[in-house]
Amino acid sequence: MSGLSDALLQALREAVGEAGLITDAERMQSYLSDWRGAYRGQAAAVLRPASTEEVAAVVRLCAQAGVALVPQGGNTGLCGGSIPDDSGAQIVLSLTRMKRIRAVDVANATITVEAGMILQQLQEAAAEVGRLFPLSLGAEGSCTVGGNLATNAGGTAVLRYGNMRDLTLGLEVVLPDGRVWDGLRGLRKDNTGYDLKHLFIGSEGTLGIITAAVLKLFPAVRSLTTAWVALPSPQAAVELIGQMRGLCGDRLTGFELMSRQSVEFVLRHVAGVSDPFAETHPWYVLIELSDTQPNAPLNELLEQGLGAALEQGVALDAVVAASDAQVRALWALREGISEAQNHEGPSLKHDISVPVSRIPDFIERTDAALQQAFPGVRIVTYGHVGDGNLHYNISKPAGAEDGAFKAQAEAIMRVIYDQTLRYAGSISAEHGLGQSKRLAAQHYKAPLELELMTRVKQALDPAGLMNPGKLL
Amino acid sequence: MSGLSDALLQALREAVGEAGLITDAERMQSYLSDWRGAYRGQAAAVLRPASTEEVAAVVRLCAQAGVALVPQGGNTGLCGGSIPDDSGAQIVLSLTRMKRIRAVDVANATITVEAGMILQQLQEAAAEVGRLFPLSLGAEGSCTVGGNLATNAGGTAVLRYGNMRDLTLGLEVVLPDGRVWDGLRGLRKDNTGYDLKHLFIGSEGTLGIITAAVLKLFPAVRSLTTAWVALPSPQAAVELIGQMRGLCGDRLTGFELMSRQSVEFVLRHVAGVSDPFAETHPWYVLIELSDTQPNAPLNELLEQGLGAALEQGVALDAVVAASDAQVRALWALREGISEAQNHEGPSLKHDISVPVSRIPDFIERTDAALQQAFPGVRIVTYGHVGDGNLHYNISKPAGAEDGAFKAQAEAIMRVIYDQTLRYAGSISAEHGLGQSKRLAAQHYKAPLELELMTRVKQALDPAGLMNPGKLL
Repeated sequence: MSGLSDALLQALREAVGEAGLITDAERMQSYLSDWRGAYRGQAAAVLRPASTEEVAAVVRLCAQAGVALVPQGGNTGLCGGSIPDDSGAQIVLSLTRMKRIRAVDVANATITVEAGMILQQLQEAAAEVGRLFPLSLGAEGSCTVGGNLATNAGGTAVLRYGNMRDLTLGLEVVLPDGRVWDGLRGLRKDNTGYDLKHLFIGSEGTLGIITAAVLKLFPAVRSLTTAWVALPSPQAAVELIGQMRGLCGDRLTGFELMSRQSVEFVLRHVAGVSDPFAETHPWYVLIELSDTQPNAPLNELLEQGLGAALEQGVALDAVVAASDAQVRALWALREGISEAQNHEGPSLKHDISVPVSRIPDFIERTDAALQQAFPGVRIVTYGHVGDGNLHYNISKPAGAEDGAFKAQAEAIMRVIYDQTLRYAGSISAEHGLGQSKRLAAQHYKAPLELELMTRVKQALDPAGLMNPGKLL
Repeated sequence: MSGLSDALLQALREAVGEAGLITDAERMQSYLSDWRGAYRGQAAAVLRPASTEEVAAVVRLCAQAGVALVPQGGNTGLCGGSIPDDSGAQIVLSLTRMKRIRAVDVANATITVEAGMILQQLQEAAAEVGRLFPLSLGAEGSCTVGGNLATNAGGTAVLRYGNMRDLTLGLEVVLPDGRVWDGLRGLRKDNTGYDLKHLFIGSEGTLGIITAAVLKLFPAVRSLTTAWVALPSPQAAVELIGQMRGLCGDRLTGFELMSRQSVEFVLRHVAGVSDPFAETHPWYVLIELSDTQPNAPLNELLEQGLGAALEQGVALDAVVAASDAQVRALWALREGISEAQNHEGPSLKHDISVPVSRIPDFIERTDAALQQAFPGVRIVTYGHVGDGNLHYNISKPAGAEDGAFKAQAEAIMRVIYDQTLRYAGSISAEHGLGQSKRLAAQHYKAPLELELMTRVKQALDPAGLMNPGKLL
């Protein structure tokens, strides 16, 4: 039974139609928990509007009734940002029926899509007109553009193309009172006042509901090469990316770091992968070069850069993929880490960033601090070197009990976040805050910054009905 | 005589020292008028703090006394954003003594500088460590980083590197109450809440005083080539940039459009320039390709692209610069336009943007509307095609009176801005609003957007003492 008044329910039904209103407990289930099952909440109803007008009507009705809304896309977030609380009083607003392409403007290099479009479908739509939409991340087959915008999604292509924020020219947003801000501009320059779109991007649904966006398209990639490189240390990775970037410029589109521990887990648990080298090495990077030119001499460039690195001892060994199958095999080593780690028991995930130059010190000191406080924990470090972004995930000591290890989660997190702060880093590089990192942010962010955020929140959502309990 | 109380003057003197306080009418003059002399105001004092602490002290004192502050950098803005009003009650806060480099982090590809640093010095500091700071614009020898941030400066390299906003990772800002927000983070990924820096960038000093910034550095350019191309129409320019971008990707770093009228003025008034072609053509573009690789085969790429364009009739004629001197000569044709136009009487400047795909229609219809309403006006159209940004400037009909022409300025502006709105464009692409476009923005921007901007302003500067009368 829904806790909403009959009058409100009836008005919502009229706004979105039968197809857009779910109150049946069974049918609501998939909207009340994230894909990993890490978060679970209750809701008075799930609404699935099919148009901006329907979203606006829903928001207006809920504003009048004082009912809180939790916007939701593909429900693939890692911080519980799209899951309602336990009260059963909130309404989940799923955008997944709004998935149209509104416009493709090849000459302007833009595409206008609705918030519920799946990222992979957007990538395909770009490819169909011979262009690239570069955002790429593990959940791309399920996550939505609206979720990507709400969390300012990152991924593996940020090094070259930036975060979702950098890929966005305009937004359409339903404001907390139900009015629609039409900021769907396809302009690369517009200096007529405060740039409001940047307020909504990354705000995790706490300032309004993003319903559509104008996104940038890029020239299609026509040449690509990939290498797997063994390194003695994170310091070598920082040196190598500097050298490769100077040599290759924007052709350097991927530079992924992995510790031996990460790769070992993949080799142990993921079928069909193998170690590219006979010897083991402490660190690896996966390097990707790409070019808009067909048959660009990327291998020569890669060999030039890696040859110098091998001579200097910056690299210990290297192999360049000779076929598409080898490219996929190398990426499988990188992309298998998260899944492989699950086979080793609970995984405590930390998505941090520091200045690129501080990565080596951060890893050395944090590893040492953890091993001192929690001897035997297995540290699965991997990430995007060019972004200073490390997925610094912890598995229990071999043979330890899950329960005892999980009980240390908070203390382990403190060690890692304390070190992050020490290196002027961020405790959430690309996952957002959602509900899981909200309190940590209150602890680790400067009070003045939290105050400014609160003032912005109050200015735009004074009633506090937009995704309460998230982010702030 | 200053209108400030003796107590406040004394407190300000203590805050910034004798060297930082100017109340002498004569010595204040250069701070009360912009470099073109288009705007003039009065001030109670000019303050020149030398550190963030001094800025904070000044802002705190002025907040307590209810005195408005007008931040100022190189004073090269085109919209009067850094000039005080006529009341003589405002204080000009010049940041030009704060010009230190605080840090260079090559491995992180960042440089941290204070707001008063001259843009050209920043470019040179980047070059000294073998890197590029790409922002480039006419006033770079005088304008400051703080002004670039406050107005989200653009220029000729936006096509490849983005606006000042895109080049910024972190900010230090003195808030309207005198507290200092330390957002000087050198992080490429940070998703821990609202991205406050984007509020201050482009806010023209109306939300706080930017005192320092962490900016991105890029690999140095080691190969460069430039071509001058004759075209039949703006439509051909849009087609050509699409083709060149697909072919060259990020190597395409400049694509500047000029009408014959623009070039004719330069040929007439600027010494030492000559028409690269024997025949006249209706439109021209200057194309620049660059690469981080030394000896990159850019000429081959350019010739491949232009060869195809000449065959298709997209281009009418083309010449590739064969020496550095020829590169400079071609750029002189582009950069001389603004000065050359001044020799033809008053120049009504409009800095608009539209989606790239709408440039041809915009030019055709706006030209026609203007010629119908104001027969004989000479339209000097030039700009950055890839950004959809046109400098659409109007000179009087040949032989007409200055006064009669100037009296039509408002009506001419209306025609141009009405057309801009029709094509979903912006009435200020890169110059900001300042005082000159503030009222136009009130007219042309959606009321809801103005309301949101006002709410943000009230949330951050409730007393309204930060650069009042500008932007909003």
